Amino acid sequence: MERLPGFRDFYPEPLPHADVWSADARQFIFNRWRETARRYGFREYDGPPLESLELFTTKSGAEIVGQLYNFVDKGERAVSLRPEMTPTLARMVAAHERNYKKPVKWFAIPQLFRYERQQKGRLREHFQFNADILGERDPAADAELIALLIDTLRSFGLTAHDFVIRLSSRNAWQEFYEVRRRKAEGRSDANAQYEFFQAIDKMERATLEESEKKLAALGFSLADVNHFIESGKPTAELESILQNLAARGLREFVRVDYHVIRGLAYYTGVVFEAFDATGEFRAIAGGGRYDNLVKLISGGKVDLPALGFGMGDVVLLELLKARSLLSKFDSPMDVYVVIEDENLRRPSLKLVHDLRVAGFAVEFPLTPLKPDKQFKRAQELKVANTVRMESADYVRIRDFKTRDEIVAGANDVANHLSRKS
Amino acid sequence: MERLPGFRDFYPEPLPHADVWSADARQFIFNRWRETARRYGFREYDGPPLESLELFTTKSGAEIVGQLYNFVDKGERAVSLRPEMTPTLARMVAAHERNYKKPVKWFAIPQLFRYERQQKGRLREHFQFNADILGERDPAADAELIALLIDTLRSFGLTAHDFVIRLSSRNAWQEFYEVRRRKAEGRSDANAQYEFFQAIDKMERATLEESEKKLAALGFSLADVNHFIESGKPTAELESILQNLAARGLREFVRVDYHVIRGLAYYTGVVFEAFDATGEFRAIAGGGRYDNLVKLISGGKVDLPALGFGMGDVVLLELLKARSLLSKFDSPMDVYVVIEDENLRRPSLKLVHDLRVAGFAVEFPLTPLKPDKQFKRAQELKVANTVRMESADYVRIRDFKTRDEIVAGANDVANHLSRKS
Repeated sequence: MERLPGFRDFYPEPLPHADVWSADARQFIFNRWRETARRYGFREYDGPPLESLELFTTKSGAEIVGQLYNFVDKGERAVSLRPEMTPTLARMVAAHERNYKKPVKWFAIPQLFRYERQQKGRLREHFQFNADILGERDPAADAELIALLIDTLRSFGLTAHDFVIRLSSRNAWQEFYEVRRRKAEGRSDANAQYEFFQAIDKMERATLEESEKKLAALGFSLADVNHFIESGKPTAELESILQNLAARGLREFVRVDYHVIRGLAYYTGVVFEAFDATGEFRAIAGGGRYDNLVKLISGGKVDLPALGFGMGDVVLLELLKARSLLSKFDSPMDVYVVIEDENLRRPSLKLVHDLRVAGFAVEFPLTPLKPDKQFKRAQELKVANTVRMESADYVRIRDFKTRDEIVAGANDVANHLSRKS
Repeated sequence: MERLPGFRDFYPEPLPHADVWSADARQFIFNRWRETARRYGFREYDGPPLESLELFTTKSGAEIVGQLYNFVDKGERAVSLRPEMTPTLARMVAAHERNYKKPVKWFAIPQLFRYERQQKGRLREHFQFNADILGERDPAADAELIALLIDTLRSFGLTAHDFVIRLSSRNAWQEFYEVRRRKAEGRSDANAQYEFFQAIDKMERATLEESEKKLAALGFSLADVNHFIESGKPTAELESILQNLAARGLREFVRVDYHVIRGLAYYTGVVFEAFDATGEFRAIAGGGRYDNLVKLISGGKVDLPALGFGMGDVVLLELLKARSLLSKFDSPMDVYVVIEDENLRRPSLKLVHDLRVAGFAVEFPLTPLKPDKQFKRAQELKVANTVRMESADYVRIRDFKTRDEIVAGANDVANHLSRKS
């Protein structure tokens, strides 16, 4: 029996096959995400991986259903595996916002699911670090969030040579759109602005001709758009964010880049994306302001400004591998307890247990095994020490690197061992 | 919009409502599970939360479908959210077992899903610590696994006064069944043994009359069954496990109890359950040998003896709360940086960032805030220290418990601060 296409199996390292993923690397990434969030005062939350379908269509419209793992459950409810975390966050915050001081700074590490029929071979799930700030309109919140994004990437050893945050503004584009539209007397129907934003979003991947045609149909000139992008003049809001980040010593990680606009309809202010410096990979992370979403999801009951970003595990992992920043995780054991004399198995079991209680990661032969095989196993496990009972009272401790050996009392072993973790 | 019935929202502490769960307590439990597994040399794995329906019906028969979150996906595949981890483990191990040394010692912390229509108000998902050993027939593997179970519970502060492992044996019951059936010339159809095991499994929750009736229908006498249970005589296999655990100093946590038989059809040898000592709660954990499952799931390709246990987060959490062993997790911040003079905001931002880079969890007012409100916020956050810039070069550090204050150079703050974590 096979796993479903687009899903991943996570195995312990060393990995048995190129087709599977490392559970150890995944946990390493999750730990770094959690640790950086902790330093920034972001608190963890989580919601159900399964939600009512309506939660997602309310935010994104009925057209999202084609990309969802949705079904009708045995209680006749229309439900869906979550394709993103923000609707759940908005639902949760709206339900209990009065109990939390503003701004709310929360993070989560959900697994997200998208069923895209056409994309064979592409993943249908990934894990995503989501960090959000709710209840603060000031750009200081945007700066705090972007600083978290930068330090999260730095926590993996990535530097300003490896990645850049491209900072942009829906407000700036909004103003551009409204001023030019009036001048050009272009289309003014409800969809025109959304289509314009989509055209900008796709410019970097489209040909000049395609962009020119699309923009012209909406009443805009490509030259005009390009001129605005190339000017790169920060709005007052962006300027304030840049200065805030500069005060923290993080200015070099950010540049204003109006190519970025984020396709999704719900962004309302500052938007940004993290890219690797060479441009080989898809975006590492993306986010921005969505000041109207909580109100929408709560049916008008709660109105909270909000902003957030998402960082997936897949592109991050590719980038860390490419930059040789991902360790091997194939040797987590500290100690191998050798049992040479089966008469000493009982006190050896006691020793194994005492060392584990003392915090060491300890392996030993569950059943009788030839000494050379035990030695080989210790070698494979890359333990720091082997420990062998010489009698019920004394043990021989060997440093596996230096090959130094010492003899110690059976109750005094822990003090002589090196710890890996 | 509401979450689906039977699913949980996890919030940061302090919790806003009795109806929601603590994301912090969840992470605390996961950390302990991981940490104990690490000391025992168990490696982490994970599979997809969505699998082909066939994986689960192959193991448990078509009747399990009534309890599943199953549906047909957009590619016409019959799929299901996982109700348990063992079939995925068997699939994964069978696919790549040649790349791993035996015994394989693996763990996972999956979220599991069951749609049980009749049980209103009951949870439809939970998290479960799964630990398994594959590739070792000797009872030494059973002892190693049970030792892990015991030390996992002990890592939460639970003692031999709080819980007990009830150890039993399918083999012993199998022998009982075969010997008595021959004597009594009872039913010998294929289902009879399964029904007998089910009757034993339900005895503790059924009335005497119910059990008597059920057993009689299968050709057994209740008195005979009770006599076997009360004898409590360990088989040679159980005796070997008890001695192994005794050598580790863990004998007091285990007792032979033939009431335990585990309802599931796939167990083949030793079985066990962890219960709280007072019997107020449902089982904390349960497991046993399932030597035939890998062969079944792999279609006969791989034959590996195996054993494992599962420990859910819900009963464990109830027990830890009842025994006052669960901390509050409402004050994870180390430092609050007070900004009294807005002219010092820029160097204060630098200080915030430096301290975060040094590993401290730091909060500060994102926007101008009256000093008394900042002090109140620091108090709510239960920080160890506040830090306030006196000038661009000097800061005043206050110990929030002792109220002692010192003045330090702006680049020397980290050395004067207390860490919570």
